[in-house]
Amino acid sequence: MPTDLARALLNPRRIALIGASGDPTRVTARAQLYLRKHGFDGELYPVNPRAETVLGERAWPSLDALPADPDFAYILLGTGQVEAQIASVAARRIPVACVLADGFAEAGPEGQALQDRLVAAARAAGVRLLGPNSMGLVNLRARTAASVNAALEADSLLPGRIALVSQSGSMMGALLSRGAARGIGFSHLIGTGNEADLTAGEIAGMLVEEPEVDAVLLFLEAVRDAPRYAGAARRAHALGKPMIVYKLGRSPFGAELATSHTGALAGTDAAADAFFRAAGIARATNLDAFLELPVLLAGRRPLARPHRAVGVMTTTGGGGAMAVDCLGVAGIEARAPDAAASAMLEAAGLPHHGRLLDVTLAGTKPERVAEALAALQAAGDTDLALSVIGSSAQFKPELAVAGIVRARDAALAAGVGKPVAAFLVPQADRSLRLLAEAGIAAFRSPESCADAVRAWCDWQAPRDAAPPEPPAFDRPDAFDEAAARRLFAALGLASPFHVMQGPEDVPAGLAWPVALKILSPDLPHKTEVGGVVLGIPDADALRREAAAMLARVRARAPAARLGGLLVQPMAKGLGEAILGFRRDPEVGPVVLLGAGGVLAELMRDTTLRTAPVDESEARAMIAEVKGLQALAGWRGLPRGDLDALARAVAAVSRLAALPWVAEAEINPLIVGAEGAGVIVADAWVTEAAG
Amino acid sequence: MPTDLARALLNPRRIALIGASGDPTRVTARAQLYLRKHGFDGELYPVNPRAETVLGERAWPSLDALPADPDFAYILLGTGQVEAQIASVAARRIPVACVLADGFAEAGPEGQALQDRLVAAARAAGVRLLGPNSMGLVNLRARTAASVNAALEADSLLPGRIALVSQSGSMMGALLSRGAARGIGFSHLIGTGNEADLTAGEIAGMLVEEPEVDAVLLFLEAVRDAPRYAGAARRAHALGKPMIVYKLGRSPFGAELATSHTGALAGTDAAADAFFRAAGIARATNLDAFLELPVLLAGRRPLARPHRAVGVMTTTGGGGAMAVDCLGVAGIEARAPDAAASAMLEAAGLPHHGRLLDVTLAGTKPERVAEALAALQAAGDTDLALSVIGSSAQFKPELAVAGIVRARDAALAAGVGKPVAAFLVPQADRSLRLLAEAGIAAFRSPESCADAVRAWCDWQAPRDAAPPEPPAFDRPDAFDEAAARRLFAALGLASPFHVMQGPEDVPAGLAWPVALKILSPDLPHKTEVGGVVLGIPDADALRREAAAMLARVRARAPAARLGGLLVQPMAKGLGEAILGFRRDPEVGPVVLLGAGGVLAELMRDTTLRTAPVDESEARAMIAEVKGLQALAGWRGLPRGDLDALARAVAAVSRLAALPWVAEAEINPLIVGAEGAGVIVADAWVTEAAG
Repeated sequence: MPTDLARALLNPRRIALIGASGDPTRVTARAQLYLRKHGFDGELYPVNPRAETVLGERAWPSLDALPADPDFAYILLGTGQVEAQIASVAARRIPVACVLADGFAEAGPEGQALQDRLVAAARAAGVRLLGPNSMGLVNLRARTAASVNAALEADSLLPGRIALVSQSGSMMGALLSRGAARGIGFSHLIGTGNEADLTAGEIAGMLVEEPEVDAVLLFLEAVRDAPRYAGAARRAHALGKPMIVYKLGRSPFGAELATSHTGALAGTDAAADAFFRAAGIARATNLDAFLELPVLLAGRRPLARPHRAVGVMTTTGGGGAMAVDCLGVAGIEARAPDAAASAMLEAAGLPHHGRLLDVTLAGTKPERVAEALAALQAAGDTDLALSVIGSSAQFKPELAVAGIVRARDAALAAGVGKPVAAFLVPQADRSLRLLAEAGIAAFRSPESCADAVRAWCDWQAPRDAAPPEPPAFDRPDAFDEAAARRLFAALGLASPFHVMQGPEDVPAGLAWPVALKILSPDLPHKTEVGGVVLGIPDADALRREAAAMLARVRARAPAARLGGLLVQPMAKGLGEAILGFRRDPEVGPVVLLGAGGVLAELMRDTTLRTAPVDESEARAMIAEVKGLQALAGWRGLPRGDLDALARAVAAVSRLAALPWVAEAEINPLIVGAEGAGVIVADAWVTEAAG
Repeated sequence: MPTDLARALLNPRRIALIGASGDPTRVTARAQLYLRKHGFDGELYPVNPRAETVLGERAWPSLDALPADPDFAYILLGTGQVEAQIASVAARRIPVACVLADGFAEAGPEGQALQDRLVAAARAAGVRLLGPNSMGLVNLRARTAASVNAALEADSLLPGRIALVSQSGSMMGALLSRGAARGIGFSHLIGTGNEADLTAGEIAGMLVEEPEVDAVLLFLEAVRDAPRYAGAARRAHALGKPMIVYKLGRSPFGAELATSHTGALAGTDAAADAFFRAAGIARATNLDAFLELPVLLAGRRPLARPHRAVGVMTTTGGGGAMAVDCLGVAGIEARAPDAAASAMLEAAGLPHHGRLLDVTLAGTKPERVAEALAALQAAGDTDLALSVIGSSAQFKPELAVAGIVRARDAALAAGVGKPVAAFLVPQADRSLRLLAEAGIAAFRSPESCADAVRAWCDWQAPRDAAPPEPPAFDRPDAFDEAAARRLFAALGLASPFHVMQGPEDVPAGLAWPVALKILSPDLPHKTEVGGVVLGIPDADALRREAAAMLARVRARAPAARLGGLLVQPMAKGLGEAILGFRRDPEVGPVVLLGAGGVLAELMRDTTLRTAPVDESEARAMIAEVKGLQALAGWRGLPRGDLDALARAVAAVSRLAALPWVAEAEINPLIVGAEGAGVIVADAWVTEAAG
């Protein structure tokens, strides 16, 4: 059941347009024009103190004067006038205020302060804020176009069952027009702008509850309030409604822009990507695929064990080969029919060999296409059956589409869950439209086909993210390496070390040779102050080196607090890993695993997950780091203790439970032979500021 | 001037259709239908022994009966009937025969044999063969649609100045329709199919000479006859006409299909990519970009020193940020205006900051857009000025396009060479068409925009490929490691080694310790037979190890020919490289450089060029191998002798001059400190079969 807020935000029936202009060439006139043009049948209140009528409709001088309580106020005035209007909205207790103006958080500290005041005023009165810098709301099913987006100039809008939430207003219009051109309609379009209050994540949570919404699209520049997204996605999963994201920031330049454009602090794209996967949100990296994915995913749930493979049939050799190639580039294999599929193809008299079922000679007759697709759907080792259509898609759209629809319907009737989809090689707008109307995913380009199928295979059920238990650990006043090692030990990742209070304090029972390091919370780069000596062979040498090190460090870093010296056995193993933890400014705690050493660092050979992870997820991470495959039996090399490494990854990821840990790193973590465990060779923890 | 062959192939005036059918529903009727539909005004000769008329036109029973000599014969008959028809064509000495049927080389050894016979018969008579498996020829400017491609069902064809040669017939039609939908027309479309005789490379060489052709597109599954492509591309460069390729095989699955589909032997995609770059052929990896690139590149030559950066203006913040992000993913930086551009923007009163010049507030007035683009064109550190257009592209196409056209015209008048281009964020077919008509590159998607700009920056002038001098070297009867080392020494890459004829034959003056290896042309994997011992400290040990090794190897590989033992100093250096040479089945000799060691191998950290390369190109290769950056001063690590490495790469690449060398590898090549040179630690040469 929609909440009151959801009703007011998604389907307002009484809309106040504050600052509505009577000059139809002005942006501030558009909301009224578009609401009327597209048939809004609720109450509309233009508010304008300088006009009795606006665009031929009665206007009111202020919110106070309105004859009834609006549920949605769209403030169209300039930046400087917004604060006063929020006060009026608050006084009238209108549930939702949408602010068009920009010049707030994205414009600098002053704008940020002004935005903060808007939020405070709204919250105090129980008013929720959409924007600022918001293009408003369009509910296509309710014919409510409360937006100034120029895309609403279109003579008619195509209603559908896909909701779009976009931080970028202009992308709202772009996706509307690109969808309409191929028969893909929307239920809602909502521009969230700066998200001072309402975020795309929270709105997505409302949209998935709407009965007329089958899928929710998110066009994001930044993730604000990650837990809301995760909550919405869990609910979406329960309801069988996919959430699909296109997020900027895949390149450093794009990330920089997203930050400057929205005033948000940018996290890394790898963290965002890990977050979407863990939350069960599918991610498109191709714009056409973003539009094409909802049709593919709607009504489906993520595959438990994707094969990352598809069956492909074609009526055009070259076009089919191009699709197979692009799928391969995206990491998806076009797989030859298995025994079950082959038997069906043979029964149908369809010759086949290899990865591409070419039915060009068998023709484009719908029954043949349906037979071929049914066979490909019957394969036990693929995730989707793809039909690549040649010129018939252009000149005989009804015929080209009929076989695919027939295959889909037969599969539905037979309870076969594997989706069918189509890639149209020529320009074939009508076929795209017919397939959209039939609810069948249709790809306009080989790249979007590959990206959408890749996203389908990558899509996972929301990962269970029970908050970890905080470890039993007494937080010290300051963190030196010994404290960091004690914290890791509390998490279950202990490696031998001793603390010497002075040169004569040689611990008993050391395993020689040893390494000696200075202990200080103020010296993260110990080597630079002469605070590391390796390979010390015996106790005499240790005493000498300890005395020399203390003298050296005191001379070079006189202000540093010293906590003694750390002694550890010289660690040996088969390989090295880097294991890290940090809090991404957008998505929160993440754990990072990489291969150790110069080469691996040069090649940025790392993987990342939102924290915490369990050992099974940690093993999946290990499999993604190429350099670590040298420890997994590659070319007969001796195997490393990857089980211990997985336990270490899971242990470090539980730092998520300690909000005062900002960052932590073990570099290197030495990986021993199978059964020999891992050894923390160096460790560091950075505490959160404040 | 077109040759006689070019005239007959590209602009035939008398066409014989052998096997023309009078049943309009049959594929074999299409060529005649399409020729008439699209207004062919030359002579048309349907040849059909069983009909006096075909589709209402007079038919002839055989080629002999024709009243004049055709210049182009399209053989529409089935596979089994083609050979006899080639004989008739040969007898009548028709310059070009095009074969529609498939079932030749791509169908197996029998088909290959049949295809070989066709070629032999044609060559003997001076007939050139197009196909088999060819969709024929369309010359849109001469209204000659000699093809059975169903895309010619279109009521009208849009002539243009882009020629397309496609190994895939269906892609001919797909590109025709995709182009037509956005105002991009073609001059010629030619389907080359199996390329038993005429290859896309040779035809491209004819097309670049045609005055009505501005650019040549190549859709390829395989490169056959690489030198022809290179020759055509050199000529295209001289004429200022770009050649642009889309080639399948970027994924292993696509490569496998291209092979099975065309009967060609597939090379690696890295080799094909290196070949295209060296030849000066631009490569698109995105299908839309393939269509968009000719408009961008026509009339231009490759940049001498690309900045890999663009200036970007936008009338839509989100769409602009999306373009910037996709460009960044493709390795192209959207760069903030430099001083020159900033001064112009300030003079024009256009506020700007950062990577994206957002003129949303300044509006979409053409003069403002033109001013902004002129400023971006004036920047000294970018390669292109991009305009990202929002909703105006959809609703006010003339207005949206006017400023860009104005900027382009002003630049032309002022002799500014930097291109302007546009990415249209909404669906905006009319704007795409207007820009195409104006000759301005317009991108339909952010991905195609990024790929096209990337291809523009990657595009290079044809690399001078003077054939290298063969080294002075007496080819031995068989290649063991000593022979391989002598060959590398002849190329200028010598490292110390000695050959021992027996255990007592200890060379004088060895630098201890040494490595000892068995010498045999039959044992490429010496370690497996106990044929390698490292770190031998002195002469006594060397005698012992030599005797033991000979006994060991004779026992384990009794059939192997032994040529004594190889002794070399134990090499030390800062790092390792892998240096290889081979002959790619498609593009010929290539040289490969990679970082050495297990990690680098796991990460496939290699780069490749067509051979030979000079030292400057070798240095560019070194810069592309990530692992080798550890030897280039990264993080203060000691520098390796990268000059010596570059000389080594250039030396090995000169193996291209010895056709009997199939493959060669130095693994590892030890890289010493700066000035200390490189050392061949192990070497192998494989001779070409036969």
